[in-house]
Amino acid sequence: MSLEFEVSRTAEGGGRRGRLALPHGVVETPVFMPVGTAATVKAVPQDTLEVLGKDGVGAQIILANTYHLYLRPGHELIRRMGGVHKFMSWTRPMLTDSGGFQVFSLSKLRKITPDGVEFRSHLDGSKHFFSPEHSMAVQIALGADVMMVFDECVEHPATYERTRESMGLTHAWAARSKDYFKAHKAEVPWHEELGGKTQSLFGIVQGGMYADLRRESAERLVEMDLPGYAIGGLAVGEPREVTREMIARTLEWLPKDKPRYVMGVGYPDEIEEYARMGVDMMDCVLPTRAGRHGLVFVRVDGVPVRLNIKKLEFAEDKGPIDPTCGCMVCSRYSRGYLRHLFASGEALAGTLLSVHNLAFYLDTMARVRAGLAG
Amino acid sequence: MSLEFEVSRTAEGGGRRGRLALPHGVVETPVFMPVGTAATVKAVPQDTLEVLGKDGVGAQIILANTYHLYLRPGHELIRRMGGVHKFMSWTRPMLTDSGGFQVFSLSKLRKITPDGVEFRSHLDGSKHFFSPEHSMAVQIALGADVMMVFDECVEHPATYERTRESMGLTHAWAARSKDYFKAHKAEVPWHEELGGKTQSLFGIVQGGMYADLRRESAERLVEMDLPGYAIGGLAVGEPREVTREMIARTLEWLPKDKPRYVMGVGYPDEIEEYARMGVDMMDCVLPTRAGRHGLVFVRVDGVPVRLNIKKLEFAEDKGPIDPTCGCMVCSRYSRGYLRHLFASGEALAGTLLSVHNLAFYLDTMARVRAGLAG
Ligand SMILES: [Zn+2]
Ligand SMILES: [Zn+2]
Repeated sequence: MSLEFEVSRTAEGGGRRGRLALPHGVVETPVFMPVGTAATVKAVPQDTLEVLGKDGVGAQIILANTYHLYLRPGHELIRRMGGVHKFMSWTRPMLTDSGGFQVFSLSKLRKITPDGVEFRSHLDGSKHFFSPEHSMAVQIALGADVMMVFDECVEHPATYERTRESMGLTHAWAARSKDYFKAHKAEVPWHEELGGKTQSLFGIVQGGMYADLRRESAERLVEMDLPGYAIGGLAVGEPREVTREMIARTLEWLPKDKPRYVMGVGYPDEIEEYARMGVDMMDCVLPTRAGRHGLVFVRVDGVPVRLNIKKLEFAEDKGPIDPTCGCMVCSRYSRGYLRHLFASGEALAGTLLSVHNLAFYLDTMARVRAGLAG
Repeated sequence: MSLEFEVSRTAEGGGRRGRLALPHGVVETPVFMPVGTAATVKAVPQDTLEVLGKDGVGAQIILANTYHLYLRPGHELIRRMGGVHKFMSWTRPMLTDSGGFQVFSLSKLRKITPDGVEFRSHLDGSKHFFSPEHSMAVQIALGADVMMVFDECVEHPATYERTRESMGLTHAWAARSKDYFKAHKAEVPWHEELGGKTQSLFGIVQGGMYADLRRESAERLVEMDLPGYAIGGLAVGEPREVTREMIARTLEWLPKDKPRYVMGVGYPDEIEEYARMGVDMMDCVLPTRAGRHGLVFVRVDGVPVRLNIKKLEFAEDKGPIDPTCGCMVCSRYSRGYLRHLFASGEALAGTLLSVHNLAFYLDTMARVRAGLAG
């Protein structure tokens, strides 16, 4: 099997303790997946990723972005290098998005047709075309363990009609994604090496902020019998109550025996909350992006709070970022030193603050997992 | 004792295998010292510095720059944080320069008087004054194991007269540095903690490219009976033969039982050559600066060569930077991946290329030490 998912316990609130076996290893769920946009979790070496967090277990699975790797260095180059795992020297599971979200948020001059999306690169303005088939071809060349169907992400806010139409396109594209994947899945770079295993293609539920559309979208996708389902199109500017509501409503319609993934969330308290509601997988650029901007997460009386390390009050602070953390940054460096690094524009600031934030996220999920284990 | 230096063997060419005991630890010489300008070896975490190189021994001693730390975060802040070791969480030996070189090379609107130098910060244009006494006060607050006298660095080229006058000022400033240090050395932040040990103040031989001035400078400084001597004012644009000649001539006039340090050199073959001539300590920004610019050192048929990782020919190169290296970068990442990181502007490129280059330098010196051990 190329994917096995087993739920060992489901708590009253819906949260599940699970185990997701993928071609490159086993992932204990619920899991937070650090984002490695261009085949690097920004500023963090792979050997550090492997030991992040209190338990020293590190990141179990990381993400890479199809749109970015397609543009640079190119998916065919990565295929020739043996796939993204070998390319970046990461032996554990990986997931690629479909490129859809980035095409809609980063690229310029998009032209959407039922066939796909024409866009210009945010790097050099060059013209490109992504269809469901092309997204699959790129993702197969990259060779992550989990890949995502190509979907349209509707802008927020969007009318009911607009959202419904977009959702229809997403469903058609999901079917085409599945067809292409089925026909070409043996082309993944490690197919033979891993004894004929293949990638797994997840569906993405859309439907904007309309619960009935979410239900319809979930039902259509479940009919396609995909091995896992994501809830997309959230955390796009809507109030947090709406995000939670959409997740809660969508989870009702997704199969309980398959992994459920909320894309692009969120703050530490959010990932904890959604995990307790029954979400198995989440990813977010926040820990690394915040780190690069001097923002660090700490736990105050059990509640996650964000500090700005730039603040003058930390200049002579000899204590760690978070006394309860114990990560490799908190066990060695003071807030005063980290503030100095950040204020001086030193590259080490980005690395160390990202490492702490990632550890904070991984530790949060480890704690949730321990709680769910009963 | 706050400094003990023991030469175990001197080879025919003059190279010596030694052992330098300092308050924060023992340094096997000849040694290369990575530069940690603003209390960070740019882009390299301290725990990585501690294990760099084939033998896993890491950097034995690192440098920090007085000028930079004086301006930001300020030496008094670092004193209150317990000194630069505690500030940056580095427990091994350290050395600070006097700030002289940076005042002359980085700052603006300098006004030099016999008393000292008035200059404007390269950061914000603010006005500052450095005298020998002030340099000592700053370096004592920082608390490196070795500090340097405040010297004037003459521009290159400079006439004999100009060089001689400047040298005279350097000698007067060395005497004032020594006097101030003698009176205030107990003020180092770790004085009590390390059982009354103090820092050690090294002299700096100047004299430009004039051998007789180098001799005169060495003789004047040797009269001051300092615990170690640097050869300054080299690698400022002169031909390499001249650098070597000035080092060779100056070494003749320096005591054989004290450590001898050539500041700010050089390429891997240079540090090897000077070490074999009898230089015990060297520092240079080259390994980290080159790394940040995508330049990496490799050994081809035993000869160090510099490669530009940006080159297209490396795009699909699955091999390591240097197959003979074995550092943590070469044992994990391909040239193709490193090229991608660099081309994509990813922070990890600076870290990984710097780590390899530093390992290359440390390995070079380890090899020289092994050879000198006889
Ligand atoms: Zn931490
Ligand atoms: Zn290497």
